[in-house]
Formats: sequence, C-alpha cells, structure tokens
Amino acid sequence: MQFHHHGYVSGDPSVQPPAGTGVDRPDELPDVVDVLIVGSGPAGMVAAAQLAQFPDVTTRLVERRGGRLEIGQADGIQARSVETFQAFGFAERIVAEAYRITEMAFWKPDPENVAHIVRAARPVDDPSGVSEFPHLIVNQARVLDYFAEAAANAPTRLRPDYGWEFVGLQVEDSGTHPVVVTLEGCAGEHDGVRRTVRARYVVGADGARSGVRAAIGAQHMGSPANHAWGVMDVLAVTDFPDIRTKCSIQSEAGNILLIPREGGYLFRMYVDLGEVPTGDNHAVRATTIDQIIAKANEILTPYTLDVKDVAWHSVYEVGHRLTDRFDDVPTREAGTRTPRVFITGDACHTHSAKAGQGMNVSMQDGFNIGWKLGHVLDGRAPESLLATYSAERHVVAKDLIDFDREWSTMMAKKPEEFDSPSELEDFYVRTAEFPAGFMTEYQPSMIVGPATHQRLATGFPVGKRFRSAPVVRVADANPVHLGHHHRADGRWRIYAFADAPAPGQPSALERWAEWVATSPRSPLAATPDGLDPDAWFDVKVVYQQDHTAVDVGRVPQAFLPRVGPFELVDYEKVYAAGTSEEVPDDVFDLRGLDRGGVVVVVRPDQYVAHVLPLDATEELGEFFEGALRAGS
Amino acid sequence: MQFHHHGYVSGDPSVQPPAGTGVDRPDELPDVVDVLIVGSGPAGMVAAAQLAQFPDVTTRLVERRGGRLEIGQADGIQARSVETFQAFGFAERIVAEAYRITEMAFWKPDPENVAHIVRAARPVDDPSGVSEFPHLIVNQARVLDYFAEAAANAPTRLRPDYGWEFVGLQVEDSGTHPVVVTLEGCAGEHDGVRRTVRARYVVGADGARSGVRAAIGAQHMGSPANHAWGVMDVLAVTDFPDIRTKCSIQSEAGNILLIPREGGYLFRMYVDLGEVPTGDNHAVRATTIDQIIAKANEILTPYTLDVKDVAWHSVYEVGHRLTDRFDDVPTREAGTRTPRVFITGDACHTHSAKAGQGMNVSMQDGFNIGWKLGHVLDGRAPESLLATYSAERHVVAKDLIDFDREWSTMMAKKPEEFDSPSELEDFYVRTAEFPAGFMTEYQPSMIVGPATHQRLATGFPVGKRFRSAPVVRVADANPVHLGHHHRADGRWRIYAFADAPAPGQPSALERWAEWVATSPRSPLAATPDGLDPDAWFDVKVVYQQDHTAVDVGRVPQAFLPRVGPFELVDYEKVYAAGTSEEVPDDVFDLRGLDRGGVVVVVRPDQYVAHVLPLDATEELGEFFEGALRAGS
Ligand SMILES: Cc1cc2nc3c(=O)[nH]c(=O)nc-3n(C[C@H](O)[C@H](O)[C@H](O)COP(=O)(O)OP(=O)(O)OC[C@H]3O[C@@H](n4cnc5c(N)ncnc54)[C@H](O)[C@@H]3O)c2cc1C
Ligand SMILES: Cc1cc2nc3c(=O)[nH]c(=O)nc-3n(C[C@H](O)[C@H](O)[C@H](O)COP(=O)(O)OP(=O)(O)OC[C@H]3O[C@@H](n4cnc5c(N)ncnc54)[C@H](O)[C@@H]3O)c2cc1C
Repeated sequence: MQFHHHGYVSGDPSVQPPAGTGVDRPDELPDVVDVLIVGSGPAGMVAAAQLAQFPDVTTRLVERRGGRLEIGQADGIQARSVETFQAFGFAERIVAEAYRITEMAFWKPDPENVAHIVRAARPVDDPSGVSEFPHLIVNQARVLDYFAEAAANAPTRLRPDYGWEFVGLQVEDSGTHPVVVTLEGCAGEHDGVRRTVRARYVVGADGARSGVRAAIGAQHMGSPANHAWGVMDVLAVTDFPDIRTKCSIQSEAGNILLIPREGGYLFRMYVDLGEVPTGDNHAVRATTIDQIIAKANEILTPYTLDVKDVAWHSVYEVGHRLTDRFDDVPTREAGTRTPRVFITGDACHTHSAKAGQGMNVSMQDGFNIGWKLGHVLDGRAPESLLATYSAERHVVAKDLIDFDREWSTMMAKKPEEFDSPSELEDFYVRTAEFPAGFMTEYQPSMIVGPATHQRLATGFPVGKRFRSAPVVRVADANPVHLGHHHRADGRWRIYAFADAPAPGQPSALERWAEWVATSPRSPLAATPDGLDPDAWFDVKVVYQQDHTAVDVGRVPQAFLPRVGPFELVDYEKVYAAGTSEEVPDDVFDLRGLDRGGVVVVVRPDQYVAHVLPLDATEELGEFFEGALRAGS
Repeated sequence: MQFHHHGYVSGDPSVQPPAGTGVDRPDELPDVVDVLIVGSGPAGMVAAAQLAQFPDVTTRLVERRGGRLEIGQADGIQARSVETFQAFGFAERIVAEAYRITEMAFWKPDPENVAHIVRAARPVDDPSGVSEFPHLIVNQARVLDYFAEAAANAPTRLRPDYGWEFVGLQVEDSGTHPVVVTLEGCAGEHDGVRRTVRARYVVGADGARSGVRAAIGAQHMGSPANHAWGVMDVLAVTDFPDIRTKCSIQSEAGNILLIPREGGYLFRMYVDLGEVPTGDNHAVRATTIDQIIAKANEILTPYTLDVKDVAWHSVYEVGHRLTDRFDDVPTREAGTRTPRVFITGDACHTHSAKAGQGMNVSMQDGFNIGWKLGHVLDGRAPESLLATYSAERHVVAKDLIDFDREWSTMMAKKPEEFDSPSELEDFYVRTAEFPAGFMTEYQPSMIVGPATHQRLATGFPVGKRFRSAPVVRVADANPVHLGHHHRADGRWRIYAFADAPAPGQPSALERWAEWVATSPRSPLAATPDGLDPDAWFDVKVVYQQDHTAVDVGRVPQAFLPRVGPFELVDYEKVYAAGTSEEVPDDVFDLRGLDRGGVVVVVRPDQYVAHVLPLDATEELGEFFEGALRAGS
C-alpha cells in the first residue's frame, strides 16, 4: 500500500483522499450524470467501485432496495474473484472471514445398500494450483459490503442511491447526455416521486428480470425450461460426517449440493427440485421449507439432519439464458455508433447455481465495463473502446452457459446413468480451471495485441488474466507478489522484464527505458501535464539479478518516477527475480520469460494485453495509439 | 473466524454481539467501575481491549488527550506484537498497511576516505525464522486505532473516555471498590470538572511521567543521565540508496538510525544528540528541526537529504529507568494483601528507542494484566493471581533494560572503538530473538507449571510463548495455523496431541478425553452452568494421522462441544498433523512432540503454562486447582 506522498495521512490509509467529483459530492441524486448504474448486485457494485476511482467522472448507482442486501443469493467465490478483491484492497479481510474450499466430496448410493449414501471420492479442489488465492464461500451480502466500502473510500466517495427504481429509458440521437432515464422513488422521502436523470452512459446491472434489457430491446434467449432448487441456509445438528466439506450428494431419493458457509456452523443445501414443467406457473415456488428439509433428510439417509434455525431459504428457479448483445447497438449497426447503454451480469446471462458462477462472472462484467467507461470519460481512450465490452463479455457468457449446461446435466444424472463410476468427479477435476474463472481469453482487438511474440513469455498468455508471481522489491528487500501491486486504479501496467546486464550497463532494457521515458511515440507521452508521470501507465522493471546486485542508484529514471506535490521518488517499481524461502521460484523460470528480456502489457482489469520484445518499441507505440484517444 | 452460532449475522462478523455491561453501556463515565485504566497508550489500550472481552466486567479508560493519537511516538513492531495483533483480530490488516523489515544495513566510514560513509553489511532480519509473522514498522497511532476498534467491537463496547486527567488516588482499607480516583476534565464539556471514580482496580498506563506511579509511592530508579535523539518523520528526496531499508549509519560526524515507514515514502531518522549532561535543564530540547536536518546531512556525506515535508519531529530524551515494583504492594508486604493498583508500560520502565521495544513491551504488560483482572473479576481465578503480574513483568523489564543498555552502548560507539569490524552486526544477528520479543520466559508459579515433562514437547518450552505451527483442520481439510485460533478471548487453551491410535480405538487420548469431559477434577468442571462447555477452556486435539484417516464421527465428544442457543457442534477443535504444500512439516516433528501423546496447556496471553503426559490427569487437575477460584 502506498500513501503519505501527498503529505502525512494520520488515519486509515485505505480511505483515499477525496478528489474531483468526490470533493463536494451531493447526497441527492443529480439531474445530470456521466454514468448511471442501475442495480447494486455484484455487477453494478464492481462497476461502481471501479468508476469511483476516476475523479473526473460523476457516477451514481440507483438501487430499488431501501438499503444493503442482508441475506441470501449467491455465495461461491472463485479464485479469479479473490484476485479482483485483492485489486480492490480487501482480499485479506474477506479471506479471513470466508469458508475456504480445499476438497470436494462425492457421495453416492452404497452399492451394498442403495438406500444409503456412502462417500465415493474426495478430490482436492483447485488441483492445478491455478492461483495463489483460494476458492471461497461467503454470503453475497458481504461481498457487496466490501465493494460498497471500496467505492465509499475512493476519491469520488461513491455511495449507492437506495430506494430508486428504474422505470425506463430513451436514447436520444444527439447531445452530450443522450440517455434519458426515468426513475421512481420507492423508499424513504422520495417514495412515489418520479424523476428523470440524464446520463452519458447507463449500465444495466438490474438482474435477471432486467428492465434495462427490455428498454434496449435486447433478445433474451435460451431454453424455455427452468430448473428449480430448494435452497436453504441453515444451522443444524447432523451426524453426516462431511457437513463442513463441499459435497455433491447423489442418492436414490434425489440430489443435494452441500456448501459449508463462513463462520464454522452455517451451511447451504441446494436440494434438487427438478426441471420445471412449462405450464407450472411458478407452482414450484410454493415448495415449503419443511418440504425441503424433509427431502434433504430422505436424500441423506442413513444420516439425519436436525435443522435448528433457518437463516434464509428460497426456491431458486433458473434457466439457461443469454442475451443476443450486451449493449444498445443492434448487431447490424455495430461499428456505426457508440453504445450508450450496457447490460451486465444476470441481466444478460443466467444459468444454474451448480457451478457457482453467477456472482463471479457478473463481477468480471462490471470490472470490464467500469474501466472502459472511465477511460472514455476522462479522455484517455476513444469511444470505440466501448464496443469491446459486448464483444468480449458475450463470448465469456456463452462459454459459461455451455459449461454450466454440461455440468448441471452431469449432476442431475441418476447414478445408473453414468458411463463410469468416477465420471462426475473426473469431470470436476478436469475442468477445474473453468469454474475458477481462468478460462477467459480475450481475442485480439484494439486492447489485446496479437500473440505473435507469445514464446517470449509463455506463462503470460495474451488475452488471459496476468498470473501473479513472487519477486523481490529491490528498495526494501521485501518478497512481494508482483501482481498484487496491480490495484483497480484504472491504470495500464507495463512490466519490463530485463535482459541480463545489471543496471547501469548498456542493455536492451536501458534503451527501452530511455524510449518509454522520452519518445513522443511512447504511450507515456499521452499523460496530460499536471498529472504524475505514472498516472496513466504504471511502468515496472524486473531484473534477473538477485536484489543485492541491483543498485537502485543506477536504475533508469523511467522506473523511479517523481510523484506527488513533493516530487518524491517512487521506489516500488523496481524488482528482482532471485529466490529465497518466500520466493521459491525465479519468475523468469516460473513464467517462461525469455532471458533476452520481454515487455508484458497488462490491462486495467488485469488481462494480458500484449507481449513484446524489448526492442519492439514501434509495435508498442502503435498498440497504444489504438487504445489511446490520440488514435481515435 | 467463528460466528453465526447464535443465529445469522448479516453484517461484519468482527463486530461481536454486545453482551453484559456492553448492552447498555453509559456514554458518561460512571461513578463506580470494576477497572479504571489511566492512559490510552499501547499498554492501556491492550489492557482495555482484553478486558472488553469480559462481559461482566465494567472497564473504563481515561485519557488526558481530547481524542486519538494522531502522530509521532514509537513505530517498531516486533513479531511477538504481530502475534498479539493476530489474537485481537487485525494482524492481516496492519501487515498490509505497515512497512516490513527484512534486512538491516550497516553503514560505516569508508576506510579509503573516512569522511564518506559506505555500506559495510546487510544481514537479514529475523535470521532464525522465530515467528511466522514479520517484523514491522508502523506509526503507534495506527496500532492504537486497531486496538480501539477491537475494544469497541468487543461484547462490552469499550471506548476510551477522552479528556480526563488523572489527578490522584487513595486505596482504602476495605470496601468492594477501595480505590478512590480523582480526575479532572481537560477537554470538551467536562473541561475543568473535578470528580471521583471508585474502582476495584486501577491500571496505571500513563507513560513515563506516570502520576499513578507517584500515587502508589513506587521508586523509579535508574541512571541519572538521559540520552537524546533528534527524531523526525519526513518526506524527502535523497540519493542515499538504502533509504527504504532499516539502517544503522555510523560516521565520523555522528550516528543515525534510519527507519523506513509505512506507505513507501515516509521515513524516520533518529539523529544521535548524545548523553544529556545532568545540569542541562532540557536545553537539548531546544534543538530545532533545521539543526537535526543539518546534522543528518553531515552524517550522510557524500549523500544528501533534501527534506520536503516534516510530518513530525521531536527531541526524544530518555534514560534507563525501572520501577522497583509494578503494583501498590510494598515488597515487605508482598503476599499479605491483594494489589489494587498496577503500573504498566513506560510508567514502570523506560529505555532508549534504539532497540524499538517501548511500545512492544508495554503491550505485553497490558495483555498480561488484562486477562488476570478479567479472571479475578468474573470469578474464574483467586485474587492471588494478581500478584503474578508484578512478579512476571518486572523480570522482563529488567532484562529489557539490560539488553537495551548493551545495544545502545554498542550503537553509540565510535567506529575505532569496536573490537572487530563486524562487532555491531554480529551482536544484532546473535541477539535477534530478544528484540523480536521471544526471550520472555515466565518462571514457575500458580499459572506456570514446572518443566518436569518438557522432553515430551521440546518445541513448546514452558513459560515461553506458544509457537504456532501449521496443521490441517479435519472437518474441512483446511490448512490452518494452530495458534491462530487462539483469540484474545480470555480462555485457557488445552492442546491434546494424540498418541498413535486412530479415533475410536482405545488409546491414552481417549482416556484423557473421557477424564477431561467428565471428571469432577477436570478443570472443565469449574465452568459455570449456563455457559458453553468451552467458555473457559478451549480443548483441542491434534491427531498424528493424515486428516483423511480421522473420522470425525469417532472423535471423542470432548473435542466436539455443543455450543450456543442451538447447541450446534463446534467442528473447529479437531486437527491432524499430515503434510502438504501448505503444511510442509508434521507438527509432531516440528515441535518435538512425543508420539506417545502430550498435553500442552496455554495461558490466555499465549504463554505455555504446562506440558504433561496424557495420563497425568492428576497433575493437570492440581495445576488448575491453583489457577482457578476453587483453589483459593
Ligand atoms: C432471490 C435470488 C436468489 C438467488 N439465489 C442464488 C443462489 O442460491 N445461488 C447462486 O449461485 N445464485 C443465486 N442467485 C443469483 C446470483 O445472486 C446472481 O447471479 C448475481 O447476484 C448476479 O449479479 P447481478 O449484479 O447481475 O444481479 P443481482 O445480484 O440480481 O442484482 C440486481 C440488482 O438490481 C436491483 N434491481 C432490479 N431491478 C431494478 C430496477 N428496476 N430498478 C432498480 N434496481 C433494480 C435489484 O434489487 C438487485 O439489487 C440468486 C439471485 C436472486 C435474485
Ligand atoms: C512524545 C513521545 C515521543 C516518543 N518517541 C518515541 C520514539 O521516537 N521511539 C520510540 O521507540 N518510542 C518513543 N516513545 C515511547 C513510546 O511511545 C512508549 O514506549 C510507548 O508508547 C509506551 O506505551 P505506554 O502505553 O506505556 O505509554 P504512552 O504511550 O506514553 O501512553 C501514556 C498515555 O497516558 C496518557 N496520560 C499521561 N498522564 C495522564 C494523566 N495524568 N491522566 C490521563 N492520561 C494520562 C498520555 O496522554 C498517553 O496517551 C515516545 C513517547 C512519547 C510520549
């Protein structure tokens, strides 16, 4: 965490100093805003927390509920989401509070007595060690709390405007704020009040029954059938031995997905209620908690479940649905005009709860649209950037729905229908990277370069999220995770992995550093006067030498920018490979980095945008001409 | 973190539900309290945060300042203190915010040109890996903030009463609240108001010029001379390459101790101003910041220091002083009456800032007296327990002063006075365990058993702090640090390390578990009706088997207590040794535990109280008869 460079901070350093629109932010919803977000679920809150980092952008978030979410909804947190929490500054805290999944147990009918269940397997979760972060379970309400705190502590002091319902919107043909949104107050003082807010852009994060989706005429398509689950968060006494382990339980009487929860006592059970017939007319929703508990007891035989307290329960009915496009530009008009309205999360994709994806994928939607709007609105990027949102996230949603269909079909199978006794757990282990959130791979675009030079950095695949690795920070000899310095501050990261010579020796790295700091074709040249030199681009170097062999006094100035009103030296951009107890591997080996040096460009949302040799400055300059306003 | 067992908690689980005196805690300072703490420095705040965990005890803390500390004072946090933060629930957060020391650099006059300094050595800090926690630097103000938060979130909702100055006290001969304290308001509404508060006990944590110390007539003794340091917390630009590394800098022009600070930019310099002559009359305090900066520049030659902003500076003048006793019972009356007034921290011991001990040792004082007062006041322990505070902490303070005298003499030496060129850094490395806080070793008493059976657990020396180790929690297969479940909740911990048989097999462990759960001689028998069975004693088991070989269904009930209003099973007391990537060593090997099983008893302040074989139930029962009220 870096602070004090604008002067001494006496209190909590995670509360950033207010800036820009955060200095005199009105409590009341204004008539005109830059971005209006509808809905404070995971998608909306992440978009808000990200936009809150842009001082010059006025963002408001309207939410129908009168206040924070208190209970229920999703609870599965994939490792990719924990990485995201890290970027927003609260990973340690939520990890300390959450349940951590390390194994998953599979229970099946006992071949000796099919009326009884028996443990068939317990593979480890995340067998591939795909992230340094764990797979967690914690109530969605707490995830939203942490994002709300991050947004409130950000420079623009963003807080949701609770008690406002989205009624409709119109996109006008011209004007600076062409989206006219109608809202109706539904809580507190403004209950029943109708009003209009004009916005440059609107983000619809209003869930599965999205009004924003309807307003932009997007097609929500998918299987007509829903699948229903009786879901309950309960405190209970049981003799089922794996009650604190994530379990898939398949018995002659039906299926349960058991999710232990935070705090050591609570757990969730999804009791399968089957496909909902088309003419059901929501009859399945009448299933009572007593019926769900009775069914659970049946499935768990010979074990019993004595429920003492029900914290929450619901019949969660969901189908596989995908919206044709995630913005207001009809496919045939793509490229001809700028999207003004975006839909995110459940508003554009839904699927079963089985793979625990809903909240996670929604957060990545919010992260993706958040920085893009920020960049366009503060003048960093051309408007054309906004079309990449729908293009990138639609593919992810489609892959997810395909995966989830496969997974839930698998889990709904009767024991006798499996090809092999271990088919289910084999599938689970084989596909672990997908539900962990790491299969997203963005295609080349104005913000993802071609993978031409991928062989220089095989461990940083272009288009996939930058996978962190431990290194040593030179100035203070601290072992640190390189990627953990990537905060959700809207900045691009450029990592220069050095060639062999030490600082001060002539090298490709020295030449690159000179170019990046001084060339008019360097992306840094776009940084407006008056901002810190690293305000838009965070340029770091990683030397191959042990940290004791890196003399900070000889490191190029490009990696030691002078920041803040006192023009202090930022020493936290210079790293060394080198190994120790806490840095078990050399990052060059660990990530397959060429010893001749390599430049890795990372997007504000942590995806690898480009891999280039140190001498490919032309290519680097060109790439950023596309991603920066200059190129629009 | 365990929660939800009293029903679903929607918000932040680190905010404990209010209980006892916390339910209707008056904002105004009451006339009668159980414990009155004077001073909100590290000693007072830790005592307060600990006592805040005892629902039936009314504790108030008065502080002369009008509000929180904002700046300055100490900043060195030894690993033992971070362990303590862990027990109070905020280690992760403060680690994320603090500067971490990994190396210390020693600079000396360049033999080639003695007017210039040159780096002579950079040994690693904590070379012995004595704790899983790091050595940190962070402003004292932030440490106090975190303890204040812990106290406010504890069941009794303790908040300091700011703006009250201690004026004097009288200890009466009889009565339930014999300590009569006179206070004077010195801020806000009660400015100038004099009042009296009656207390059962008073903790003087009012710093080096302690009024409480004076009131109990304790002798504050030590060298007449003070040593003075010009201290400054500054933002500066410099070409000194180790500015982000802890350094001891010795030059012909004088000495500097350089401490990089949290946030990446700020640092502290202690510029040696030498011994203060007896007749100085505080003339040294007139040293200006400009003089300190000028002196620093002289010492740093050939490097320069361009100070841009001074966050804080002070002339810190301190001598080696130790009070003869830490409570109000004169030595000749020891054992004849119960102490009523205690002094802690700088009130009873002061020493140089060089070894960075002041804040740390003070916190351990507060931790020590806190739980003891809690136990006596809620009826768990006899009053005789209170005499152990002075007995235990006086020795620690004396050792500290001896160590510090040696260390500061060493650091004040002129380069030519050293016996060998590396004498200073050798001393630093050789004695690392002391300043890290791990040399404290309490002697046998009513709360520390004899070390008769030490060979059964060589890695848990009796009287020293329990050194945590990674194990696997059986119920959820989570790798966890055994010691991190030891929260500062006032409970004794009893760890039963099992003999070889698996759960359900006849074993010494099974017999021990039966005894502890049912025998009238078991310490658990003292737990009052109506409380959870683990309210006073947290009894855990660690099996030798891999976690997959431990069947929770067969583990003795002693390790699966039923807790809370719903009588839910607490599954977090059953552990397994077993190794994996995250649990690299088997705890039996790592801590030298006898494979025939061993019981390790740990005090509420994390010190090992006893090591016993599983069959020594008689001895265990007897030990607790001494420590519990029953034995008084
Ligand atoms: C009742 C319920 C139960 C669920 N249970 C599970 C579960 O058991 N397991 C699981 O994995 N997933 C579950 N989900 C799905 C999971 O919560 C979602 O996948 C995830 O929250 C998607 O995030 P989102 O931000 O897209 O939408 P949501 O979290 O649905 O957030 C949408 C927000 O928009 C607000 N909103 C809606 N319409 C308007 C409007 N017109 N004006 C203003 N605000 C509006 C809503 O109040 C809500 O706060 C559940 C969802 C719901 C609604
Ligand atoms: C000005 C100052 C500078 C210091 N600088 C350094 C340093 O550079 N390096 C270092 O290692 N250590 C330094 N120390 C010492 C370090 O802060 C102490 O060792 C540590 O704080 C001891 O903790 P404590 O709780 O015993 O006492 P303190 O932290 O001194 O706390 C005592 C508290 O009691 C309050 N108090 C005092 N008298 C009364 C009264 N009559 N009524 C009510 N409240 C009262 C005070 O306001 C204070 O908050 C400094 C201390 C001070 C006071």
